[in-house]
Amino acid sequence: MTRYEQVAEELRRRIEHGLYRVGDRLPSIRALCQEFGVSVSTVQEAYRRLEDVALVESRPKSGFFVLPRQVPTQLPTMTRPAQRPLDVSQWDQVLAMVGSPGDETVLMLGGGIPDLESPTLKPLQRLLGGLHRGSGAQGYNYDPLAGSLELRRQVARLTTASGCLLHPDDILTTTGCQEALAIAIRALAGPGDVVAVDSPSFYGTLQILKANGLKALEIPTDPQTGISLEALELALEQWPIRAIQVTPTCNNPLGYTMPEAKKRELVRLAQRFDVAIIEDDVYGDLAYGLPRPRTLKSFDDDGRVLLCSSFSKTLMPGLRVGWIAPGRYRDRVAHMKYVSTGASATLPQLAVAAFVERGHYERHLREITRQYQRHRDILLGWIERWFPTGTAVSYPQGSFLLWLEMPAGIDCVDLNARLAASRIRIAPGSLFSASGKYRDCLRLNYAPRPTADTARAVRTVGETLSAMLDEERAWQASS
Amino acid sequence: MTRYEQVAEELRRRIEHGLYRVGDRLPSIRALCQEFGVSVSTVQEAYRRLEDVALVESRPKSGFFVLPRQVPTQLPTMTRPAQRPLDVSQWDQVLAMVGSPGDETVLMLGGGIPDLESPTLKPLQRLLGGLHRGSGAQGYNYDPLAGSLELRRQVARLTTASGCLLHPDDILTTTGCQEALAIAIRALAGPGDVVAVDSPSFYGTLQILKANGLKALEIPTDPQTGISLEALELALEQWPIRAIQVTPTCNNPLGYTMPEAKKRELVRLAQRFDVAIIEDDVYGDLAYGLPRPRTLKSFDDDGRVLLCSSFSKTLMPGLRVGWIAPGRYRDRVAHMKYVSTGASATLPQLAVAAFVERGHYERHLREITRQYQRHRDILLGWIERWFPTGTAVSYPQGSFLLWLEMPAGIDCVDLNARLAASRIRIAPGSLFSASGKYRDCLRLNYAPRPTADTARAVRTVGETLSAMLDEERAWQASS
Repeated sequence: MTRYEQVAEELRRRIEHGLYRVGDRLPSIRALCQEFGVSVSTVQEAYRRLEDVALVESRPKSGFFVLPRQVPTQLPTMTRPAQRPLDVSQWDQVLAMVGSPGDETVLMLGGGIPDLESPTLKPLQRLLGGLHRGSGAQGYNYDPLAGSLELRRQVARLTTASGCLLHPDDILTTTGCQEALAIAIRALAGPGDVVAVDSPSFYGTLQILKANGLKALEIPTDPQTGISLEALELALEQWPIRAIQVTPTCNNPLGYTMPEAKKRELVRLAQRFDVAIIEDDVYGDLAYGLPRPRTLKSFDDDGRVLLCSSFSKTLMPGLRVGWIAPGRYRDRVAHMKYVSTGASATLPQLAVAAFVERGHYERHLREITRQYQRHRDILLGWIERWFPTGTAVSYPQGSFLLWLEMPAGIDCVDLNARLAASRIRIAPGSLFSASGKYRDCLRLNYAPRPTADTARAVRTVGETLSAMLDEERAWQASS
Repeated sequence: MTRYEQVAEELRRRIEHGLYRVGDRLPSIRALCQEFGVSVSTVQEAYRRLEDVALVESRPKSGFFVLPRQVPTQLPTMTRPAQRPLDVSQWDQVLAMVGSPGDETVLMLGGGIPDLESPTLKPLQRLLGGLHRGSGAQGYNYDPLAGSLELRRQVARLTTASGCLLHPDDILTTTGCQEALAIAIRALAGPGDVVAVDSPSFYGTLQILKANGLKALEIPTDPQTGISLEALELALEQWPIRAIQVTPTCNNPLGYTMPEAKKRELVRLAQRFDVAIIEDDVYGDLAYGLPRPRTLKSFDDDGRVLLCSSFSKTLMPGLRVGWIAPGRYRDRVAHMKYVSTGASATLPQLAVAAFVERGHYERHLREITRQYQRHRDILLGWIERWFPTGTAVSYPQGSFLLWLEMPAGIDCVDLNARLAASRIRIAPGSLFSASGKYRDCLRLNYAPRPTADTARAVRTVGETLSAMLDEERAWQASS
């Protein structure tokens, strides 16, 4: 952090903790120069940042004042998907999202991309460049099918933090978490089979079900504690479910982490019905609190959990370094991995292994989770300020994704169309449903450093939503 | 090439062209020193190399003499696979092959790895290292689903050499050719469907059929002109074939390139029966002759050919940079690509694109195909010398793979087991069949520079085969 960012951050914390209350006049520039031992321009810059993010306002000749938060935060409600197996649709919407993530003329407020500018990633870039300069032929050869042993050793070591005891041979590296999920699902189920999923659910997984002719059975999910075990149990009694696919830690898109006891109970339930669990843990290392939440895999005593993850959300998605610990399904998963891409790229695995081994990864996680937590609070502040009354918002315990549920009448696919003129795009909730439910919801990404530009964009989203609500109400009143 | 390699190469060429005949005494060391203007030790080293590869022998106090080739080369016969749709087996054998390609204690004589030591690859390593040093965040972000435009532009340009006219938008990049083949097959066919293949056929493709519950219909194939169109036509009349999968140029494992007229006819046949063709062209750029052979895709006027390739055989497999031109099946293939790995790694694509754009790729191909051609002739010499009479050998027109058909009674899976003690492994022919046929055949790789070690290893293979034949004959005589 630069000096002015530190000053801004300290003031933000004081506002957050109520030291300065809404409407209070904040200390003068001169007072802050003295307190922090910094220049006038540094304090001015700090105040400018707080203005940008709508925490304070400057009143001519009076100084800076704490702005009010508009409404108290309201959490989204328990989801109520259609509780029968469904074919998955929504590919057009997903394609619009993933077709061109690099279009720099569009501000992607809803994507799944982490912050790639973090200085704690620099050593990884150096390692990658160095390996390419120094590597012999072996580094450019096919990797063993299971992946590079160096990386699997480090992954095995990392997973102890989430309560696992894995041997490197229990792990296969993959081309991103997407390949891990795809081969897990294909190893377990074929056309017509039913997979139970938490709902809303990552669209990448839903599209795997679609591509394999599988049906999704979406289970009601609590925005704070995850998939309803009661509903899941009923579903297991009623339908021939081949696998349960969940993201129990730092859930995408809802942000919750399932309580430990509930995780244990979910594994027991799967054992009772003898069904496999595919655990997407790709955001798990981004939990804000310590200790690192346990995985379902850590409660798995008979190898039925296929733990899937990658370094795409913690480090860099463009490296495509993922992994899977497939438990008792290892042989089938290895076959699916072979036919899917042969081997994964060699040198990125070695670079990530060295990055982890030298302690850079843990250092990076400490920094980046602090940063994401700050960004979450800033984004929540913006939403409280600029979004219509009745907006419900998740309160993520990790990662960098926010889920919003809008008042009745809002259609977020329509919202995206309206935002196109402003070169802004959000992720409509319907992406996260097999059948396009949750059109009243949207996902926002707070990974990148908040700027005046993003503040303006979020404000535009909020104002567009308010306008849509007004139209909706006018239409209802007239009809 | 070093100086002594140049001298050795020139002598080899003269022997090849009959300037020095079998039993001839070769020029003295002194004479060659004068002719080439090199030192005594250089000529000695050159002769040592020719001895290593069994082209010449030194007789004490007499000089060097041209060694005889043992038997005239015999080509493998037309293949006769079971002409009904079969489930694919052989995964155990394939796994033994791909499980640990990097085991340096085993000499892999049968793998599919190109020469990674070629100096013409150095610029690619520099480009890769440089990109990692210099890249901004964008280089580490998710790539667009279709892949990087820079690479697709270069691929489109390269394919003009094989008679194609592709736009960058007609191409998607993939994680190696394996992913291209996997998503092509999955876009076209589902469990129970039948895919016709040339036979023998790349094991990676056969295993894709297995993983998807598809059946392989293996079509008789001529070792010099490829898949039998007569047999294919009968099969198309008899069975509900969903796709034809072939490797018509620099075939793996047989080494042939289908004649152009036959390629055209194959496309017409597919049109007549309205069936898609999956064309594996991964070795096509390694054809020895000019002009570059045309692809089936170049005769495809209604978009039914899905052209699959990669830079794994021409550059480095560990980069996992492949591509597909899926014709009219683009949308389904894009969906399969998305669910398979999301996006492919970004920076390797940019590095390969720059390597091609700057002319390094064409330069590399010129060098490496000359090298492979030399290696082919050396390996053929070894086989003529050390393998049992009755061995039939392919005569590849490109790439770096040789196919051998052994006299009756030889089992190459058994051969591999016997070679294990010598830390040598070949690729048994049964890998290349859905049902484990071709156990009397094997594939050898001649990509790496021939050394005394590889000569010894090939000799060991030949002698082991001779011993097996003797045992077999003794057993038959006694029974």
